[in-house]
This record gives sequence, C-alpha cells and structure tokens, in this order.
Amino acid sequence: MGNRWATGRIEAFSDGVFAIAITLLVLEIAVPRSEFGNLWHGIGSQWPSYLAYATSFVTIGGLWMVHHGIFRRLQYANSALMRINLALLMAVSFLPFPTSLLAEAITETDAERAAVIFYGATLLLISLLVSGLWGIAARNRELLRPEVTDQEVNAILVATTPSAGFYVGVIVLAIFAPQVAAFGYLVIGILVVLRAQGDERETRDVAGSA
Amino acid sequence: MGNRWATGRIEAFSDGVFAIAITLLVLEIAVPRSEFGNLWHGIGSQWPSYLAYATSFVTIGGLWMVHHGIFRRLQYANSALMRINLALLMAVSFLPFPTSLLAEAITETDAERAAVIFYGATLLLISLLVSGLWGIAARNRELLRPEVTDQEVNAILVATTPSAGFYVGVIVLAIFAPQVAAFGYLVIGILVVLRAQGDERETRDVAGSA
Amino acid sequence: MGNRWATGRIEAFSDGVFAIAITLLVLEIAVPRSEFGNLWHGIGSQWPSYLAYATSFVTIGGLWMVHHGIFRRLQYANSALMRINLALLMAVSFLPFPTSLLAEAITETDAERAAVIFYGATLLLISLLVSGLWGIAARNRELLRPEVTDQEVNAILVATTPSAGFYVGVIVLAIFAPQVAAFGYLVIGILVVLRAQGDERETRDVAGSA
Amino acid sequence: MGNRWATGRIEAFSDGVFAIAITLLVLEIAVPRSEFGNLWHGIGSQWPSYLAYATSFVTIGGLWMVHHGIFRRLQYANSALMRINLALLMAVSFLPFPTSLLAEAITETDAERAAVIFYGATLLLISLLVSGLWGIAARNRELLRPEVTDQEVNAILVATTPSAGFYVGVIVLAIFAPQVAAFGYLVIGILVVLRAQGDERETRDVAGSA
Repeated sequence: MGNRWATGRIEAFSDGVFAIAITLLVLEIAVPRSEFGNLWHGIGSQWPSYLAYATSFVTIGGLWMVHHGIFRRLQYANSALMRINLALLMAVSFLPFPTSLLAEAITETDAERAAVIFYGATLLLISLLVSGLWGIAARNRELLRPEVTDQEVNAILVATTPSAGFYVGVIVLAIFAPQVAAFGYLVIGILVVLRAQGDERETRDVAGSA
Repeated sequence: MGNRWATGRIEAFSDGVFAIAITLLVLEIAVPRSEFGNLWHGIGSQWPSYLAYATSFVTIGGLWMVHHGIFRRLQYANSALMRINLALLMAVSFLPFPTSLLAEAITETDAERAAVIFYGATLLLISLLVSGLWGIAARNRELLRPEVTDQEVNAILVATTPSAGFYVGVIVLAIFAPQVAAFGYLVIGILVVLRAQGDERETRDVAGSA
Repeated sequence: MGNRWATGRIEAFSDGVFAIAITLLVLEIAVPRSEFGNLWHGIGSQWPSYLAYATSFVTIGGLWMVHHGIFRRLQYANSALMRINLALLMAVSFLPFPTSLLAEAITETDAERAAVIFYGATLLLISLLVSGLWGIAARNRELLRPEVTDQEVNAILVATTPSAGFYVGVIVLAIFAPQVAAFGYLVIGILVVLRAQGDERETRDVAGSA
Repeated sequence: MGNRWATGRIEAFSDGVFAIAITLLVLEIAVPRSEFGNLWHGIGSQWPSYLAYATSFVTIGGLWMVHHGIFRRLQYANSALMRINLALLMAVSFLPFPTSLLAEAITETDAERAAVIFYGATLLLISLLVSGLWGIAARNRELLRPEVTDQEVNAILVATTPSAGFYVGVIVLAIFAPQVAAFGYLVIGILVVLRAQGDERETRDVAGSA
C-alpha cells in the first residue's frame, strides 16, 4: 500500500510530452529553394514527409487516446507504473528522429529498408510499453478505481496487445517491400485510433466524474 | 449513450498542441548574417516572415478562442468528436510548414501563387474541421451541457461557418493577386478573433462554473 | 455583464506559450565545430548567447509571475482582456527572434546598436501589454474577485507600470552604449522577478483557495 | 505569513518547461546523408547522441519525479521558493545545449574532456537547486501541508542531497576518463529515478487527496 503517486500531474506531464512530440514532427518538412521554380511540384515531391508526419501524428494521437483511457481508470500510480510511463515518454519523444529518417530515406534504394525497419522497431517498442503500462495496472488492482470491472480490464488488455503483433508483421514485410510497409504503419495507427473507441464502451457514468 | 470521454484532458492536450504550434512559428524568422552591415534594413526586409507569423498566430489564437467556446459547452466527447478533434490538431500542427513556405516564397514571382494558395487551403481545411467539430456537437445534443440553448447552438454554427466561405474567396483572389490575398488571410484571422466575442453573449452564469 | 470567459483554460494556454517561448531560447546556443580544438575557450566565447538567454528567460519568468498574480485575482475574462492577452502571447512568442539577433549581433560593431534597440523595443511592447492587461482588469472591477481590495489593484498598477519607463531609459542608453544596455535589460528582468513579491503581500487567505 | 503563491500554476508551468526541455533533446539527433549508403552503420554510429539523449531524459525525468514529490507536500510557495524554482527551470531549459555539446564532442580527443565536465557541471547545478528548493521548504514549515512529518522532510533531504556528491565525484573522474564519466551521469540519473520511490513511502493517504 505504501508507495503511491497522485495521477493528475503525471497526466499533465505526459500530455505535455505527447503534444510537443506530435508538434515537432512538422519541423522536418521543407521544400528546398531549388524547387521554387515549380512550387506545386516541389510541394508534391515532399510526399514521404507527409506520410511520415501523418503516420507519427496518428500513432501518437491514438496512443494518447489509449493513455487517456488507462489513466482515467487509475486511482493512483505506483513506482513501477511511474517508471514504465517515463520509459514510454522517452520512446515517444525519440520518435521524431526515426520519423525524419523515414521521410529522408524512403526514396533512396540503399537506405529505405533500414529506415523503415528502424521506424517500425520504435513503434513496436512504444506499443510494448503501452501494453506493459496497462499490464502493471491489471496486475495491481488496488491501483484501479473501484468501479473498474474485470470486463473493462480485459477489454483494454485485448485492445493494447494486438498492436505489437501488427508491428512485428509489418516489420517483416519491410524486409521485402519497405514502401508498402511504410503505408502499413499508417494503417495500424488509424486502427489504433478507431479501436480506442471500444475501451470506453462499458462506462455509463463518466459524465458526472469529469 | 455508451461511448463517452471526459473533456478535461482533451482540452489540456489541445491547448498544448495549439500553444506549441503557435510558438514554433517564430523559429522560421531570421536575418541572414550578410544583412548585418545594415541591420535595420535587414530587420525590415523580413516583412513576409512577420506577416506570415502574425497571420498564423492570430488565426490559431482565434481558433483557440472558438475551441474554448465549443468545449466549455460540452459535457463529454464521443468517438466522432475525438477523431475530428485529432484531425483538427493535425492540421494545426501542420500549419508551420505552409507558414514558412509563404514567408519564403511571397517575394518570388515564380512561387508566390502556389505558396499563397497552399497556405489558404490549409486554413480552409482547419476552418472546415472546426465547423465539423461543432456540427457533431450540434447533432448530438446529449454531448452538450443541459443549460446550452438552441440559440447558442445556432449562434456558434453561424460564427464558425462563414470563415470557410471567406477562405474560398481569398484563395480565388490569390490566383490573380497573391500578395493581396496574403493580407486577406490576416484580415480573416482578425475577424475570427473579434467575432469570437459573440459566442459567449448569451451566458450569464459562467463565473460560478469555472 | 454579458460576455464572459472562464479563466482556467486561458491560464493553461498562456502557461504553455510562456513555457515554450522560454525553452526555445536555448536552441540558439551552439559552439561551432571549429572551436572544438580549444573547447573551454569556445564555450566561453558564447557569452553573448548566455546573456541573451538569461535576460529573455528572467524577463519571461518575471512576466509569468506577474501574469500569475493578475489571473489569480480575476473571476472571469471579457473580450478585451482575451484580445490583449493574445497580443501579449504573440509578443512573448516573438521574443526568441530578437533574442537570437541580440546574441549574434552584439559583438559586431555595425549591427549591435540596431539589435539591442530592436530587442529592447520588443521588451517595451511586452511591458506595455502587461500594463494594459491589468489596466483593463482595474477599470472593470466586475472582472475581479470580490475580495480584491483597491490597495491591491493599485499595488499591481504601480508594480507593472515603471518597467515601461525603465525600458525606455535603457533603449535611449543603447544608442550610446549598446553593450551596457544589453546588461541593463537583464537588470530590469531581475528587478521584475524581485518586485513580483510585493504583488501578493496583502493576501492572507490564499492557502485555502488553491 | 504575508507573501504566498498558490502552487497549481507553478506546477503547470514547471511541467511545461520539463516536458519541452525533455522533448527538444531529440532535435540534436540526425544521421548525415553521407551515411545513407550503409544506414544501419550510420544509425549505430550515432551512439553518443543516444547516450546523451538517454542521460538527459532520465535525469530530467527523475528530477520531475522529485519535483512532483516536493510540490505535493507544499501548501503554498513563498517568494524565495518561486525564485529558486525559476532558477531551476532556467538550468533545466539550458540542458539541451551541454547535451548536444556532449553528443558532438565525446568522440573527439581534443574536446571530450571539456564537454563532459561542462555537462556534469550543469547537472551539478541542477542538483544543487533541487536541494535548495527542498531546503527552503524544510526551513519554512508553514509552507508544508500539516500532515507532512519530520520523517518525510528528512527522507527527502537525504534523497536530494547525495546526488550533488555523486556529480562532483563523476566530474573529477571526467578529468581522467571522460567517456567513462559520461556513462556515470546516466547511472546517477537512473539512481535518481529509482530512489524517487522512497520519497513517498511514508504516505498512506494520498489516494483521496489527488
């Protein structure tokens, strides 16, 4: 029972890191001045940057929705949860680096495979850390609000686990078809956002507790 | 009734993204060292950067005021609202890219038209997503606080819709007179800030609920 | 009575902008690789960057303390206050540009005068906007919490006004002695932080209302 | 008794600065295009950047946990606490500069010693400011919540003080073995995160007060 942390400031700090990591992604995008003669073409030729930006944005956005769903069910955090949350934020903050690498390398035959796999490995790590975050909460039921049902605990476990499997699949695909795999990450990110819906299906009494 | 999200963390996360997107805009502005011999002239010659900075800042600032007005009237969010809010944040975070493009290209005859139209298209998209955000709330009255009147719902619909029309108008203008159109975006942004006032006119009992 | 805004989200958004503007300042600082042969000397030769960083940080920090003191006394905001706060945030977000210009130009005889005056003019503008913010609150007593006394209103007016005078003085000094004036801004910033203390002297019942 | 500040906005502002400083660190990391021919090797050769990123992230993360533990025990802040907190935020915001210097210089024989000592000196300064923050709270018991025991006050004093000693030790080590010392900072950062646990051991009634 001893070692508890209030969740309010953890949420605020995490939201700050998510919001900044998501917003820094745009700093990678630029049209070189040499393309100003035909700027529409120059804007269009940045498509790898837009793909990388959209994928990382959607992935972090979906992750934030999952994170929101997890922390809303916590009464307080213990040290293990604090540490895994810090590791998660560290991986999220790191994402702009593989994102920019992906954007730069995807049109270069030599480099695209490594860049796509490295990017996917970072997403896989993030995905495993999110599963771990909820895993700790699920194994320490005293961390959860009393009204959280076993059904909800399992629903979130199910919702957070398969992402890791998808990422492994797409990383294997990246060995053979890196550009296809890059779009695969975007699809997984969109699925995370769409699936985040289910996490909340059982709760009917939220309105009053906000 | 099933699928609800508390609004507190959505506001915190959105505020973070707005605040960062608005603050990153300044990173585009610099005087090249070659102009240090006559620095006043160098500072003055950055006027396209100041125009782009001011326009994007005022537009995001006005948007934040509208967003504040929308979320204050929500009891909770549903999944559709979460997703359209995420899309809105994605468009807002993207804005520094067309902003810097506008600042760089506006004095180059070849590139100014494309840059001004691309910038306007981003603002139009943002404007449509804000209308969509309120549209979802207006069609799902159970999302709104009970004290929100039909009058208020319509007042905000009216306040958020015409911006899209203005942006279409200025984008058409940009085909013929790009530099004039660039100032047109600033005027629309200022109008959004000034009009944000009316959104709150009907509420007399806010003080106690903050 | 009509047009009110709750202050909680204004504070959160303003804090975000202050925190980011204050943190971006460090991105300007770098030792060129050519100085790695004698890195201690290279670190030392960046003193103009440290001076500019410290001055802008202390000034924004002091400003944040004053802003905190103002908003704690508000019940709600009106449109005029919202707009002047937005203008203030726009000036604060702009500060990293004159800051980096100051750091680059202060050791170049041609450019130092213009850079120091331009930097000071931005600080003067910020100072006037803070005075204006409190001026609006002081002239619209229904915006203030009922327990705020006339004494407090005047104490804050006195505390926010003289900064403007100091900045005008140092800007005039900058015409003759730019480097001395650059240190003068730092002194004013430190004074703002030290004087922020007095703003709170009259309140004895804060602890319970936090 | 006179001069009090509510802690809510101080926490929000501090969280913003911590979150941004922690997230900006990634902007230093990049693989030069010349290494795209063998991108795996290029990614691997950035290890000094990863080490510097991880060390600064873990250190700021651990610091944030300590800061969270300190502010949770405060009823309100006085001016001395506000100022030392501002100085702490200034040092934290400055950290990305010595971090990038460390990452660049650690593989260059001429520069590594200075870079490692300069980085350590910044961490030592941060560590001293955190001790000072709690020192002020410990000497002004009216700042603390009534339920905080002498035992807790001393436990936090003990937890915040030895870091300074560790940093002095590693800085001395850096004179003889800079690369070993760079890993030493990471070890101290991890210890700060692990030790942050103990700060909360005595509190059994947190859940209700969040």
